[in-house]
Amino acid sequence: MQTNKSTESCSHFLDKFLNPKSIAIYGANENLLQNMGSQQLLNMIDNGYKGRIYPIHPKLESVWTLKAYKKIADLPEIPDLAIVILPTQIVPQIFHEIGQKGVKNVVLVTAGFRETENLKGEQELKEIAKSYGFRFMGPNCLGFQNTHAKYKEDSDDECILNFTWTNYQTEPGEVSIASQSGTFASHINFLMKERDLNMNKCLSIGNEADIDICDCLEYFEQDPNTKVILLYIEEIKRGRKFLDLVKRITPKKPIVALYVGGSEGGAKAVASHTGAIAGNDNIFNTLFKQTGVIRVYSIEELLDVGAALSKLVKINAIPRGNRLAIVTNSGGPGATMADLSSRLGLNIPTFSQELQNQLKKYLPHTAQSRQASNPLDYTFSIDPTTFFKTIPELLAKSGEVDGMVCYGAFGPAFFSYRNFGNEILKRQEIQKLIKLFTEMFEAAVDSAKRIPKKYKFPIFYINPIGYFKDDIIDFLNKKGFLVFRLPDQAIKTMYYIMRYGIFLEKHKIIK
Amino acid sequence: MQTNKSTESCSHFLDKFLNPKSIAIYGANENLLQNMGSQQLLNMIDNGYKGRIYPIHPKLESVWTLKAYKKIADLPEIPDLAIVILPTQIVPQIFHEIGQKGVKNVVLVTAGFRETENLKGEQELKEIAKSYGFRFMGPNCLGFQNTHAKYKEDSDDECILNFTWTNYQTEPGEVSIASQSGTFASHINFLMKERDLNMNKCLSIGNEADIDICDCLEYFEQDPNTKVILLYIEEIKRGRKFLDLVKRITPKKPIVALYVGGSEGGAKAVASHTGAIAGNDNIFNTLFKQTGVIRVYSIEELLDVGAALSKLVKINAIPRGNRLAIVTNSGGPGATMADLSSRLGLNIPTFSQELQNQLKKYLPHTAQSRQASNPLDYTFSIDPTTFFKTIPELLAKSGEVDGMVCYGAFGPAFFSYRNFGNEILKRQEIQKLIKLFTEMFEAAVDSAKRIPKKYKFPIFYINPIGYFKDDIIDFLNKKGFLVFRLPDQAIKTMYYIMRYGIFLEKHKIIK
Repeated sequence: MQTNKSTESCSHFLDKFLNPKSIAIYGANENLLQNMGSQQLLNMIDNGYKGRIYPIHPKLESVWTLKAYKKIADLPEIPDLAIVILPTQIVPQIFHEIGQKGVKNVVLVTAGFRETENLKGEQELKEIAKSYGFRFMGPNCLGFQNTHAKYKEDSDDECILNFTWTNYQTEPGEVSIASQSGTFASHINFLMKERDLNMNKCLSIGNEADIDICDCLEYFEQDPNTKVILLYIEEIKRGRKFLDLVKRITPKKPIVALYVGGSEGGAKAVASHTGAIAGNDNIFNTLFKQTGVIRVYSIEELLDVGAALSKLVKINAIPRGNRLAIVTNSGGPGATMADLSSRLGLNIPTFSQELQNQLKKYLPHTAQSRQASNPLDYTFSIDPTTFFKTIPELLAKSGEVDGMVCYGAFGPAFFSYRNFGNEILKRQEIQKLIKLFTEMFEAAVDSAKRIPKKYKFPIFYINPIGYFKDDIIDFLNKKGFLVFRLPDQAIKTMYYIMRYGIFLEKHKIIK
Repeated sequence: MQTNKSTESCSHFLDKFLNPKSIAIYGANENLLQNMGSQQLLNMIDNGYKGRIYPIHPKLESVWTLKAYKKIADLPEIPDLAIVILPTQIVPQIFHEIGQKGVKNVVLVTAGFRETENLKGEQELKEIAKSYGFRFMGPNCLGFQNTHAKYKEDSDDECILNFTWTNYQTEPGEVSIASQSGTFASHINFLMKERDLNMNKCLSIGNEADIDICDCLEYFEQDPNTKVILLYIEEIKRGRKFLDLVKRITPKKPIVALYVGGSEGGAKAVASHTGAIAGNDNIFNTLFKQTGVIRVYSIEELLDVGAALSKLVKINAIPRGNRLAIVTNSGGPGATMADLSSRLGLNIPTFSQELQNQLKKYLPHTAQSRQASNPLDYTFSIDPTTFFKTIPELLAKSGEVDGMVCYGAFGPAFFSYRNFGNEILKRQEIQKLIKLFTEMFEAAVDSAKRIPKKYKFPIFYINPIGYFKDDIIDFLNKKGFLVFRLPDQAIKTMYYIMRYGIFLEKHKIIK
């Protein structure tokens, strides 16, 4: 029996689709600035795809250092995947050539079909594909990213296969995405690092002429590497199927959905298409609510909630209630977070007298803190062990709250001065102090890292300095905590997570 | 007659308060990690305050290289300002010493008064101050930042005076802030650079025992350097005065307010105090709406709207309606923005046939774009002049929309690959292409920079790569555009700005 997760088998057709050993790509030359295919191939190489790549070009001998072929018929093998980034009008002919070669999986990036009312063209493609028995993604899509791509026959070795527009920038992970927007399926790469959001697969499905969001859901359900599912939805074609799928999946794997077709403006932008449930926000709200799909309202929320879930699912720490402890080193952020929590319907309970007494022992002697109220206000400095370990653990094991959001996790970057060139900070005794502070901080975080798992108690921190400026954020991330830049980002994320937990609780889903 | 704005006089008492030529500071030693006073003095020096600083310490000979004095009585002059960061119990005595020296302006950072129900202590301070005739900020505050501090007798030379916790990181500007949270009055420094938000003054007013938010408003109204006012409010003590002030100010200078005391959780966190309008969201909503105060719901929104207003006020380009053009290089962000706009009640009008015909001439031949609809979808690459100049100008001068939000302003950072160490990107012909692209981009932006002013037409861009990664954002910022990281950030900001513009229009305020 094999224990390595990546060796578990998955028989869904998309599994083979996303793990090609060889790829033919149409439409890449070396015109980086004006040719999408060139960018996409470059990105595939740069991201380290290790399978065989065959650029197909009628004239060029090579593309980006790879040997090019005039026609797919010339290839020394039947590639596992063909990618097409060519002008609309020649796609049908290329589809025939692909079919004749015997290729079974195709990504059609090219636009100019249903979205431009060229329904006939799209229908023609479907018929060609059907006649040869191949499946295709698109048209009008950007392809996919698979951070666990198996590229070798008879081997479970993995590499990153990403031929969207942008570079994959974090570690491979467990969050899988299906997106009806190619841009979002690609530009999210710019937004993941600071969230420590690690992707598993990301599929840009475009017009869904053949492969649709239901296929993706069905696959993500079966895929052992996918633990959290994110969806960007403009319309749903197979409404009944979608409903059945999400109902079955959400008890096992959380689904977060950004649906933009519901408002008047959104529906107009998306445009409505026959057979789709679209344009009715209420239907979607009911559907999402009943099935436990977490509906969010922006890309930021989609990624924030996805990042949080991926960490919490791993340690089985989805909170099962909406009682929140707000902890802060200052009154303003505390009040702001309490205000937003209240607006969202979260419960900020008063701590029991017993818990208050326990907390008071560790609070500094400024009287604001002595109240041990919720929000719990530390005011000024407190030693890192109290901040990261003692207080969170008291809250976690009290059973009085289901999660905690804490403003003010700062590293030494807080002491970065600029104009005098850090002259004073360079003094030996100051450097010693800052080093000591950093070590104490890191030791405290390290000793606290088991709290969320042990007590099934999510802990979110806020640091306004930001990921790219304060190294401590990466340190906290790597220890399994979540760090947000802004108070409302953390509160909103907690709100969504708690709603999902309450759904699980209501349906008696034990984990 | 003097024309330099900074030489205009302002007789409000806070003007002298915020422009001290000499400062006494109590409570700084050199314990950087555990002593607030030490941090605050260090920050004052580091930010380049050029007036005379007198640390007062009973034992030390010097603090951070400055000569220290045992008592304020020992100082060679009466300082213009005294800052007190000492334990609560000795403050009354220090207040007497300060009064006896003849100091007229005091910042009391120390906490432990009204917010801890020590009303008697706070009353005592007020009486001492009154008896000596000095004014004070606080207690329980963090002081202030003045980026235009006049530090010299008989001179209008300016420097930055900032003794809050954090370093001022952008250029001096025209946005002034009054905050009942010291943390926000300081931590906003971490959040300004990427917004190109340039501050004028920022006052942390704490418990408002003496100087309150109404004093700040009165001063900001008179201060010629303040063009935009931001407020963080937990409670308002002088409700009638506040109402009169904002009513008078908003037609001249926009006021943006984050009020957190209105919800149950917010009110509980803030706690209610006698004589304050607090805890009733409806009263505040009505008050803000009637007086044209822009009410926002998070620190992010406060800063985003502040940054936008500071640029738009300067060129008199506050939009006077809610008709928005959404422009995008991709469908997904376009649909997302249209959806949010619609939820917020913005109008995304269909363009007239004439405007559509004009637009179509410049759109690439992918049919999505040929529709020239709103959102206007460019899909893939378009030359920078069309993107930054031609299309925005057509929209601006059409009179059919009041503003524009555009997704996809990317610089060469878009082409940053990582794994092959940019080998291919280093090729000479590719470098030439990217250089050309950058030059074309910059020339286009440069030629477009007059559009917002000329047509009173705000233009916001979105770039998900982010300020710290893509230099082009700073370039756009410096040309007067606004660049946001996320679609909903841009749309929400536009929504707030448009609401303010409609208020101005309704009240026939001509600018």
